[in-house]
Amino acid sequence: MTRRRVRNPRGPPCRRSVEGERKTGVTSQDVLHMRRAVALAALGQGGTSPNPVVGCVVVDASGEIAGEGFHAYAGGPHAEVVALREAGERASGGTAYVTLEPCDHTGRTGPCSRALLDAGVARVVIAVADPNPVAAGGAGTLRSHGVRVDTGVLTEEAERGNAAWLTFVRASRPYVTWKFAATVDGRSAAADGTSQWITSPEARADVHRLRAESDAILAGVGTVVADDPRLTARVPEPLRERPVLRVVADSSARTPATARVLDGEAPTLVAVADDAVLPPHLSGAVRLPRADGGIDLRALMAELRGRQVVSVLLEGGPTLAGSFLREGLVDRVVGYVAPALFGAGAAALGPAGVRTLAEAHRLEFEEVARIGPDLRVVLRPQPSKES
Amino acid sequence: MTRRRVRNPRGPPCRRSVEGERKTGVTSQDVLHMRRAVALAALGQGGTSPNPVVGCVVVDASGEIAGEGFHAYAGGPHAEVVALREAGERASGGTAYVTLEPCDHTGRTGPCSRALLDAGVARVVIAVADPNPVAAGGAGTLRSHGVRVDTGVLTEEAERGNAAWLTFVRASRPYVTWKFAATVDGRSAAADGTSQWITSPEARADVHRLRAESDAILAGVGTVVADDPRLTARVPEPLRERPVLRVVADSSARTPATARVLDGEAPTLVAVADDAVLPPHLSGAVRLPRADGGIDLRALMAELRGRQVVSVLLEGGPTLAGSFLREGLVDRVVGYVAPALFGAGAAALGPAGVRTLAEAHRLEFEEVARIGPDLRVVLRPQPSKES
Repeated sequence: MTRRRVRNPRGPPCRRSVEGERKTGVTSQDVLHMRRAVALAALGQGGTSPNPVVGCVVVDASGEIAGEGFHAYAGGPHAEVVALREAGERASGGTAYVTLEPCDHTGRTGPCSRALLDAGVARVVIAVADPNPVAAGGAGTLRSHGVRVDTGVLTEEAERGNAAWLTFVRASRPYVTWKFAATVDGRSAAADGTSQWITSPEARADVHRLRAESDAILAGVGTVVADDPRLTARVPEPLRERPVLRVVADSSARTPATARVLDGEAPTLVAVADDAVLPPHLSGAVRLPRADGGIDLRALMAELRGRQVVSVLLEGGPTLAGSFLREGLVDRVVGYVAPALFGAGAAALGPAGVRTLAEAHRLEFEEVARIGPDLRVVLRPQPSKES
Repeated sequence: MTRRRVRNPRGPPCRRSVEGERKTGVTSQDVLHMRRAVALAALGQGGTSPNPVVGCVVVDASGEIAGEGFHAYAGGPHAEVVALREAGERASGGTAYVTLEPCDHTGRTGPCSRALLDAGVARVVIAVADPNPVAAGGAGTLRSHGVRVDTGVLTEEAERGNAAWLTFVRASRPYVTWKFAATVDGRSAAADGTSQWITSPEARADVHRLRAESDAILAGVGTVVADDPRLTARVPEPLRERPVLRVVADSSARTPATARVLDGEAPTLVAVADDAVLPPHLSGAVRLPRADGGIDLRALMAELRGRQVVSVLLEGGPTLAGSFLREGLVDRVVGYVAPALFGAGAAALGPAGVRTLAEAHRLEFEEVARIGPDLRVVLRPQPSKES
């Protein structure tokens, strides 16, 4: 199924979001290399915040893979630089496959567009155009120096891998994953309130992985009072600049002084309403406007965005989860479903603004997997409903 | 991995539940043929009631498949007879693989043990011993005539395929499948009661297949009053002797005269409490003892068993489903889970006797499949809890 690569396509260029790129002349070999680059990018998942994940494959002029790289942590070398370093002189005249448009600005590292030019790469293939106005423009710079730029290759897969960062940049708010654990009949506790443990050790270990990949873990004060969770990731965190931030939505400043979230093991942000009376142990709380009996969630998102929180794991609290859904602030749902039935007890999800069937929050199953005896379901809002 | 078949094993016979069989000398070829027989048996699913499903493969003396058969409908030829007919003279000196011990009695057809002897089969391999005292004994008869009998081959798979019938015979009650449709958060209706349709047309078509495979479809009167379901299978039913029986658990005889379940499209059994006052349109109702605010479910099961109902599909009514679970009368759960969230509305399952986590009904995911945009999960009670 390999088509011969057309070096000088005669057809009109197919313009997309990145200036000056062509989609003609893209071969199945290109798709394979980009798939590898997407897989490389995923290796940085959880470590790169507030940067995106990026993967890069450099092939030499004969089409052989000469170098591979991914962005592992903020402040560390960019994927392109890692791959070019490995490729060495073989990059000259070759092609670089990058999951995100190479940056064009000098941040903590120099612009990748410059590195690609210096290496003498003849062609750059890009999956996703950079929506970040500060860093964008790499494709244009490359092209103005005679490098052939193709884009739109495996865009969807690459976008999915970078969903958190892309939401952060495009919607100017953190990417929110609502995680729940429940029985098949949707209960997160039995009638008497017992809930430890509904799911298996395997599922709980998976949750710690989810936590470690997030910039912040958010719970409502109801959960903090009832379960006293630590909200930390008990697995080795990826290389990251900052520890995972614990956030408590606590409009009335009820978080007890003895709560584990205040144990200093990790930083904690308690968000209270602007009219809350603060006890001394919550003097460091941030005040936000009230809305719907709690704090204004959009204001909370803006606060977190200002703190460079790219991704939030929403845990604990059917009420808080319902409010996030109602506000359209849930980008992903990860459910751990135990093969058990309660028939009574607390529901996993509280009121979410749905009065009738037509108002249901409709999603799509993106992934279904067995985790030990449990099921992990990953859902995303239906594309038509995405902001 | 094929081992040489040992015709005359010298080891001591390994005795199991069927008299006189040996498990030594079973080859991987035997397992392959039995797997085929199990697959053949499944083709009769839904049509054979009140008989079991049975599949048979006959190989000739050289090991070549000479005939295949399955039991398609009650009163029709048994699997062995079909396979032997196809094999003809090639059965002589060959081996027959049967998923269930061949019958030894003359019912509507002659005993299969006799048919196998007449065909000159030298060896019979059996997956599951017949627990039915009326029909059992085929293995002994065969052996007493010098036929080698091996059993215990693919027993678990074959038992699973015959789960309904085996429960019917062993527990003397119908096999109960509880079917539900719900959102990911376990709701079967929105806050205002709307529930049509939570799941997709594909999932609903699958439910009709489930219905067509059942001998009876059972709903509580609450569901009959609220939703007025037809409780029929709107797909071509398999070849079956009797149409699917509709059953309404209606302790207080509240089924309205206008209810669709009384439309005569299929037979309907209304089960009322023995003290219920019957309106004229329910004069044909069956009276059963009261228990726990409804009718005694074990009495209902006995009534259905007496009517040769091998399998019941329990639909509609979180309350009724909860009662069945509490009574330990659910053998299988089939859930259709829509990728939607309500956060409010009726729960898919009502009180099921679980007050605390330790009392949860624990099951196992047996199967998870995508049905259109929805998920179908099949669960069975954990083996340790099975009766």
